[in-house]
Amino acid sequence: MTAIGVDIGGTKIAAGLVVDGAIVRRTRRATPRLGSAAIFDAVAGAVAELRADGPPVTALGIGAPGIVDPVTGTVRSATDTVPGWHGAEVRAELARRTGLPVAVDNDVRAMALAECRLGAARGHDLVLHVSVGTGVGGAFSRGGVPVRGERATAGEIAHLLVPTRGAKPCGCGRDDHLEAVASGPAIAAAYTALAGGEPVELPEVERRMRAGDDRARQAVTAAGALLGRVLSGLVTALDLDAVVVGGGAARLGAALLDPVARALDAETRPPQRRTPVLPALLQRDGPVLGAALLTTAIEGEHR
Amino acid sequence: MTAIGVDIGGTKIAAGLVVDGAIVRRTRRATPRLGSAAIFDAVAGAVAELRADGPPVTALGIGAPGIVDPVTGTVRSATDTVPGWHGAEVRAELARRTGLPVAVDNDVRAMALAECRLGAARGHDLVLHVSVGTGVGGAFSRGGVPVRGERATAGEIAHLLVPTRGAKPCGCGRDDHLEAVASGPAIAAAYTALAGGEPVELPEVERRMRAGDDRARQAVTAAGALLGRVLSGLVTALDLDAVVVGGGAARLGAALLDPVARALDAETRPPQRRTPVLPALLQRDGPVLGAALLTTAIEGEHR
Repeated sequence: MTAIGVDIGGTKIAAGLVVDGAIVRRTRRATPRLGSAAIFDAVAGAVAELRADGPPVTALGIGAPGIVDPVTGTVRSATDTVPGWHGAEVRAELARRTGLPVAVDNDVRAMALAECRLGAARGHDLVLHVSVGTGVGGAFSRGGVPVRGERATAGEIAHLLVPTRGAKPCGCGRDDHLEAVASGPAIAAAYTALAGGEPVELPEVERRMRAGDDRARQAVTAAGALLGRVLSGLVTALDLDAVVVGGGAARLGAALLDPVARALDAETRPPQRRTPVLPALLQRDGPVLGAALLTTAIEGEHR
Repeated sequence: MTAIGVDIGGTKIAAGLVVDGAIVRRTRRATPRLGSAAIFDAVAGAVAELRADGPPVTALGIGAPGIVDPVTGTVRSATDTVPGWHGAEVRAELARRTGLPVAVDNDVRAMALAECRLGAARGHDLVLHVSVGTGVGGAFSRGGVPVRGERATAGEIAHLLVPTRGAKPCGCGRDDHLEAVASGPAIAAAYTALAGGEPVELPEVERRMRAGDDRARQAVTAAGALLGRVLSGLVTALDLDAVVVGGGAARLGAALLDPVARALDAETRPPQRRTPVLPALLQRDGPVLGAALLTTAIEGEHR
């Protein structure tokens, strides 16, 4: 397989040329804030860059935010995390711009596919994959295959309720949703609320936490604990075998994941205690690798 | 099929002789609060009463609260809603007392089986069944068959988080779980908190609501709205086709279900709006009918 995988995120577009399950060439762009046409142009530019003087590429796979219908290749629903994204005709527009066959799915479902084939989810049957980044995304996999659902919303966990008002609203505008307390920007906003001073972004919160800033650690711990409590409810209600946590904020490592696992365990009734909470193994490569793996459906290997 | 179905609830044991999908004879007992042996004796007494001078009974089906393992016929986990229930060996103890082959499952899963075969869930693929009674229980069904999960916890929704402190703790002791705001006793406690005076139970709240007591209606509406908000998160994350609501508190009817449907719709992102919220059709017969239907597995029809 020689395919290009592209992860369209709330802040950046990451693309890679993937040969036999490994990324051999990479590029990235800032995500334009000017609507879907500008995003498609940016993706097409990244694809052209990766194809220049390289081996023949057979397909393009796209992981995209929002409720993405992989059958029609369109975005059924999206919040304003990516302006103009609602209704975007991803497959048609990118096929036209690149001349390649295009496979499209939700970005977290792409990440989940990579973790199922090559990463932390191997050997586990029913898994919830959580991506903590600009938003909070999720995907379920069963027997190594991501689950989509009839309306392609399966795994959308951002809007689950939490018993705490978030430091930043959820992408949908509510204050008491998981995304309002556990996304990267929500953690940064919670830190600013604790520490005062100029607002900072998550990388700076991480830097200060590693330098010994207790309020930074406190903001990260609180987000992890709430995420763990929400996951406890899902782990029991769905009888999950494991949870895999990835996304940009997963680089916080144990500072985020230990509180997730502790809260999950404390909140959960006995038969579900000690459900494994696993860090995504492929880290920032996962979404791009997974997007490229989506194209194996086109080639008939998957689905 | 001539089987006896028994629904063991937090306050009462209901039993019925079921012939060809209909209850032809009924009895009930208060649920003893003295541990599992007393409950088994009460169930055996009800079974003997139903068998006296009747047609030959081929099997006994039990719907029981808690995390019930239908393979071993034991209770893996239970809160103190039924004292002494944790670890109870339901199948073995009742087979010994009655001489009948015994099928056991969670009570809400039994109710779900009846609604799938004979009731509101017919024609819907992926359904969440909710029982609002002494606690808040749930069960999923797919393609007409209740889903159990690897550890038999599938559908256990009582411990999902809510953004409001309940008027009464959840069965597990927490204050911010669904069961702490939406169970029958929680609705009654919320009414007492609003209205003052002597504590009353749910039937009295219902009577006052129907007589025009605004605070009674307010307590019911608030519980329904929170239930709807929690269900919204699940409907989206699991991409559900329908929700069926039954249990003792479902007799509140539209006063409870309209706020559930309104809140679910308001909270939900577009692809999942207008998910049907259906009243359980079999009402108080559902758990007993479903328990009897569990025995069709013994006869080889189901599973």
